[in-house]
Amino acid sequence: MQNARPLPNYLIKRYNGWKATTYKENEAWYHRLADEGQRPRAMVISCCDSRVHVTSIFGADNGEFFIHRNIANLVPPYKPDGLQHGTSAAVEYAVTALKVAHIIVLGHSNCGGVQGCLSMCSGKAPELEEKSSFVGRWMDILRPGYERIKDLPEETQAAALEKESVLVSIQNLMTFPFVAKEVKEGRLTLHALWNDIGEGGLEHYDPEQGHFLSV
Amino acid sequence: MQNARPLPNYLIKRYNGWKATTYKENEAWYHRLADEGQRPRAMVISCCDSRVHVTSIFGADNGEFFIHRNIANLVPPYKPDGLQHGTSAAVEYAVTALKVAHIIVLGHSNCGGVQGCLSMCSGKAPELEEKSSFVGRWMDILRPGYERIKDLPEETQAAALEKESVLVSIQNLMTFPFVAKEVKEGRLTLHALWNDIGEGGLEHYDPEQGHFLSV
Amino acid sequence: MQNARPLPNYLIKRYNGWKATTYKENEAWYHRLADEGQRPRAMVISCCDSRVHVTSIFGADNGEFFIHRNIANLVPPYKPDGLQHGTSAAVEYAVTALKVAHIIVLGHSNCGGVQGCLSMCSGKAPELEEKSSFVGRWMDILRPGYERIKDLPEETQAAALEKESVLVSIQNLMTFPFVAKEVKEGRLTLHALWNDIGEGGLEHYDPEQGHFLSV
Amino acid sequence: MQNARPLPNYLIKRYNGWKATTYKENEAWYHRLADEGQRPRAMVISCCDSRVHVTSIFGADNGEFFIHRNIANLVPPYKPDGLQHGTSAAVEYAVTALKVAHIIVLGHSNCGGVQGCLSMCSGKAPELEEKSSFVGRWMDILRPGYERIKDLPEETQAAALEKESVLVSIQNLMTFPFVAKEVKEGRLTLHALWNDIGEGGLEHYDPEQGHFLSV
Repeated sequence: MQNARPLPNYLIKRYNGWKATTYKENEAWYHRLADEGQRPRAMVISCCDSRVHVTSIFGADNGEFFIHRNIANLVPPYKPDGLQHGTSAAVEYAVTALKVAHIIVLGHSNCGGVQGCLSMCSGKAPELEEKSSFVGRWMDILRPGYERIKDLPEETQAAALEKESVLVSIQNLMTFPFVAKEVKEGRLTLHALWNDIGEGGLEHYDPEQGHFLSV
Repeated sequence: MQNARPLPNYLIKRYNGWKATTYKENEAWYHRLADEGQRPRAMVISCCDSRVHVTSIFGADNGEFFIHRNIANLVPPYKPDGLQHGTSAAVEYAVTALKVAHIIVLGHSNCGGVQGCLSMCSGKAPELEEKSSFVGRWMDILRPGYERIKDLPEETQAAALEKESVLVSIQNLMTFPFVAKEVKEGRLTLHALWNDIGEGGLEHYDPEQGHFLSV
Repeated sequence: MQNARPLPNYLIKRYNGWKATTYKENEAWYHRLADEGQRPRAMVISCCDSRVHVTSIFGADNGEFFIHRNIANLVPPYKPDGLQHGTSAAVEYAVTALKVAHIIVLGHSNCGGVQGCLSMCSGKAPELEEKSSFVGRWMDILRPGYERIKDLPEETQAAALEKESVLVSIQNLMTFPFVAKEVKEGRLTLHALWNDIGEGGLEHYDPEQGHFLSV
Repeated sequence: MQNARPLPNYLIKRYNGWKATTYKENEAWYHRLADEGQRPRAMVISCCDSRVHVTSIFGADNGEFFIHRNIANLVPPYKPDGLQHGTSAAVEYAVTALKVAHIIVLGHSNCGGVQGCLSMCSGKAPELEEKSSFVGRWMDILRPGYERIKDLPEETQAAALEKESVLVSIQNLMTFPFVAKEVKEGRLTLHALWNDIGEGGLEHYDPEQGHFLSV
């Protein structure tokens, strides 16, 4: 705790500005949110990447989205082994406690985590294969996706694997009994999206056509 | 994947609005971000809670913050056991690949995850103690914090444990060798924050006084 | 007026998005609507409830429906006593000035106003019986409907009273001389609908069978 | 009830389309809304006019806005006289039962109700002054606004009175004890808006400058 340091001054200034404007204008709403608790309509699972902020893209304000962000927007398969699974805990809380109506998995272009997975799976990043690499072990979740795209032309593999990161997560979500049950009973829907950062594009997976299309 | 469904129409409309305004106005910047990659100054670890959006509080735009969000903004201790650790992967990527200069851990008031931990540790939520409870196992990370606050008056325990969730994370961050090394060499600083949702307050941990103070 | 505050920023952003897309695409139509005035085909009387938007259900665009919304979609009986009657004013304007061809009264499931009426009429909500309760006095309009459903099994009373709220309004509409005249002369038709929010169902009252049927 | 007629076929077709698409895509959300009740963030008071749909302008979906619509978006002064006040009932329900954080009063250009008020107050519409005119009596609420604009150049009076219809409503809202109390305690904020139909403009009242400005 000796290592906790004061916030850089530019962030304190910005916070003070937010307090005097955005907070002030929404004070009543923040009071309600504090008193009555959150009741978000959707859970969003997106990447930690600093270039993708889902609240901006969807004009969402406080209270709308319960947002989990990890490397490459991955959901591991259901595994109730008594160990720590932060993503599974977030999904469990969203579905069983908050009873969200949607889970939106949002992938994106130029994803560093997916690029690392591609390098690792194609044998070009031995350091990621080491037991001690947290990024490598985390990206192992995406190996089934790599198997499906490895024979594509090399220049298309990254984008294809980014989309697989979304689909693998959707697949794994369905291995959670409480997710599958809510989906089956019409109380939860899953959505697979991919955002092109440079072009500002948004594609969704169309199960009938079997690929991603612009929304 | 058969379970991926079209996005609700109101979100498509809002996305189209974003594309025609925010994206359009920042097109050059989005192109640069896509072409040259991200270079965020800070990593933020905050809660999934829909009521706390750090980009709003700190007026942060695309490219500024690499954001990991999980239940109760927790970082587990360093444990390179070859298993999947999503939070540790995010920290590793931020520090070793992106070389962020700050890690900000942001806790908040009225935290459902912390409340669950409080109930569990005080014996009032046996369902969270089961092996199969992802939320319960995840909140085990905060048990050392509970030990430090359990003798406080009951009505102050929740806020105290929310602050402990930040401090436990800071402590655990220092168990990662690559974090400790960067901190020691002055290339990385850690920041412990707590946000009061209703009042819009922001406190930071002051190591000299040994408690949280308004920024 | 000192109490008028700036709009929350997320709504300004969404408005800007609408302006750049929906407005832009329909600019010519909006200009015509402004220059030539509205000429709606139907008046809709529905509830204020946030879960029922008639424009969505009927794919209606600007200019189609003249919409009055109040608690429980009620029309009071004709009473030209020189006092303020907002609902009667809306009906008068729609029929005599706009000459709409239809008046659609749309009730819905899970109606809080109807539930309040049920509690009040069965003696379980004395606070609604007080002179100062605007909701209670407003729901008095529905008392004749309660008389018709009070002997039904308790679990069916709420839905039955929701449907009565539509029928009482249709009945009361016919007490307005200008409504009765237009109906008699074939220039106006009245429609009684009830929407099941959860199931997305829509029922209309069939005078021959004497009850509501799916459309 | 003999007067309830089947819905025009084009509306049944559109409803069937909505059921198969919008409802289907949002089924989970509609189920939640039905099971758990509404919890709208804001109440909107707007005009019945067919050309102004607030959900479109603000990209709002089911569950977000509790919407009361009457002629000229008027709120009468607080008057707990035991008579029927539909608008007051809607405000009471929104503030005391739903505990909304915002009340947005939305006026608009080319308002027929306001035009009628202008004609009536300037002596050009004696029929509206009759005791039996519901529209006339309803527009009496706006007479204090007319007093403030009657000396303006004639061609600017209509727009000025439309804006007064918003401000009179804000003023009257503050005469409701439960509104004033929530505003004072920071649990409710009031917003005064005016929409230019033809140009797609949106203005808000700025108390410091004392007039409406583009948002």
